[in-house]
Amino acid sequence: MVDQTVNVTLTEDTKQKPVAEQLEFGRVFTDHMFIMDYIEGKGWHNPRIVPYQPVTLDPAAIVFHYGQTVFEGLKAYVTKDGEARLFRPEKNMQRLNRSNERMCIPHLDEDVALNAIKQLVSLERDWIPTAPGTSLYIRPFIISTESYLGVAPSKTYQFLVILSPVGAYYKEGINPVKIAVEDEFVRAVKGGTGEAKTAGNYASSLKAQELVSDKGYAQVLWLDGLEKKYIEEVGSMNVFFKINGEVVTPALNGSILEGVTRNSVIRLLNHWDIPVAERKISMEEVYEAYEKGLLEEAFGAGTAAVISPIGELSWKGEQLIINDRVTGSVSKRLYDTLTGIQYGTEEDPFGWIEKVK
Amino acid sequence: MVDQTVNVTLTEDTKQKPVAEQLEFGRVFTDHMFIMDYIEGKGWHNPRIVPYQPVTLDPAAIVFHYGQTVFEGLKAYVTKDGEARLFRPEKNMQRLNRSNERMCIPHLDEDVALNAIKQLVSLERDWIPTAPGTSLYIRPFIISTESYLGVAPSKTYQFLVILSPVGAYYKEGINPVKIAVEDEFVRAVKGGTGEAKTAGNYASSLKAQELVSDKGYAQVLWLDGLEKKYIEEVGSMNVFFKINGEVVTPALNGSILEGVTRNSVIRLLNHWDIPVAERKISMEEVYEAYEKGLLEEAFGAGTAAVISPIGELSWKGEQLIINDRVTGSVSKRLYDTLTGIQYGTEEDPFGWIEKVK
Repeated sequence: MVDQTVNVTLTEDTKQKPVAEQLEFGRVFTDHMFIMDYIEGKGWHNPRIVPYQPVTLDPAAIVFHYGQTVFEGLKAYVTKDGEARLFRPEKNMQRLNRSNERMCIPHLDEDVALNAIKQLVSLERDWIPTAPGTSLYIRPFIISTESYLGVAPSKTYQFLVILSPVGAYYKEGINPVKIAVEDEFVRAVKGGTGEAKTAGNYASSLKAQELVSDKGYAQVLWLDGLEKKYIEEVGSMNVFFKINGEVVTPALNGSILEGVTRNSVIRLLNHWDIPVAERKISMEEVYEAYEKGLLEEAFGAGTAAVISPIGELSWKGEQLIINDRVTGSVSKRLYDTLTGIQYGTEEDPFGWIEKVK
Repeated sequence: MVDQTVNVTLTEDTKQKPVAEQLEFGRVFTDHMFIMDYIEGKGWHNPRIVPYQPVTLDPAAIVFHYGQTVFEGLKAYVTKDGEARLFRPEKNMQRLNRSNERMCIPHLDEDVALNAIKQLVSLERDWIPTAPGTSLYIRPFIISTESYLGVAPSKTYQFLVILSPVGAYYKEGINPVKIAVEDEFVRAVKGGTGEAKTAGNYASSLKAQELVSDKGYAQVLWLDGLEKKYIEEVGSMNVFFKINGEVVTPALNGSILEGVTRNSVIRLLNHWDIPVAERKISMEEVYEAYEKGLLEEAFGAGTAAVISPIGELSWKGEQLIINDRVTGSVSKRLYDTLTGIQYGTEEDPFGWIEKVK
């Protein structure tokens, strides 16, 4: 067993923290970062917190050429009483290892990784913004660092954690967005890497996103790669539809990311006795429900926006206007409850909160 | 128009060149590299040759998280008379731009890029190994360097070229290999990134490759992602089957990489009046031909191995032994002719060779 004590080197040059109104997503980073190395035969070793600094790699490093990399995304929140906390972070660590498995990256001890995150967040405690809806975004990621141009798993890696104070995703609270159903490009297919949180999935999504942005849509809704018939995800969120009183979300099928917010939404709906189903759902079915006046709400669910209501869905030249472009009552209740639990204004009946000392 | 004069900074510390017998693939790099920067609004600028050195990037650089990157692979050869030369390099530059288009990376001037490669190869002329079958592998690649965690195309990039002296792919000349047909994992699907030379395609292939390597197979043969029925590629090469006198290769369909060697093989077969077809071909068809004794040869075609004969194909528990595990006459003729043109022992009837001064 390699010594897992985290060596801490403090910066001598602290940065100025951004003012709350200027907070964006993922542009500003805190004073320190976490790094741990992996070498085949030795395992993960040398966990350390160091001043935020550039990564220096050989130009032949595998990550630059073959994209062998995984990442996670979660947030630290601060309550009115000044308590720092994470939301279900163990789910992110479990998913990180599932992604590692798919991408041939060595398993990471989930407790070691989570403790590293907590220690880093604790050190950067003053970087967690306090204005409503703001938080400290946490980005753990692993890169393949071996200098080798053969197509093979790397023999060396780095696990890094960086932190970014972020603003509210929607400055005026949640607001329904316009989404375009994508019927040319494909995000993922069964047997591919869709359920892993890995770079290539995001790289492949850029083109479709760029094309719909030009037409005024916030995100694309991805259909399955086989028949382009069944709904998968929206942008980088999971998606839910409320049809005739029942909330439906695509079942996990190997090409859909297993979102932590997705899981939390399902748990809350069950808790509230609102019918919820995980199953295959086609765009035809959504359209038919819409035609009959039964499509009551639609929303995306993910760490960044928490709940993102969909006000308009564009599909095959048709514009589906959902709930008069107003946030639906279930969407609103989910958003309020989830953010309430995260910021400590609501009870935490499921033990989802992990305090940071 | 930005000044495209290449600024050259020579190393003060030249490395020792590896001996011919110890040459591997992609492990040793030359003394210098090429770099050029891109900034939105300014375009590609500051082309320079510098001592081979690490790349230093912010840990939030997009390439580490979302894999927005493309690459190419080609080789420099030296003739008996000491002439350095490239093989159809303009095809690689064209494909680099097609990959850029798919990955939302800005277009690169193909002449500027090719001239940079030629200037770098010329400077590193003494690094081109001279033993039979050896060459200098050229790896141009573009990485997204903006420090931003939003999922969007980067506003800054670097184009780099590194060089690696490589040994003969097969030390004893060409030798038939064992290939396993992959029916669980998928490399690419229509609407995805299969025809782009981008990191994610290679990352997603690692798992399947790892599993078949453990069973003694050199590579996997990829089937289409929709029906897992039609043949796409083998490992990171294109694939050809000679059936009853006709050579068949999968038609380009949006998920197959358009190989330079693939194109050269087709041109040579046409030139020789050997029937060749680019069309859909299923594993069922290959198996039926095998059963009838009509599957005469099979081979992969790519820059690294040139021609790689397939001696055994494993599919659904069946072992198809092809041509008694001996290299077929068409495979051999293609290999001899292509390498002959590359090394200058054969005529170059198509003008494929580009000399490096």
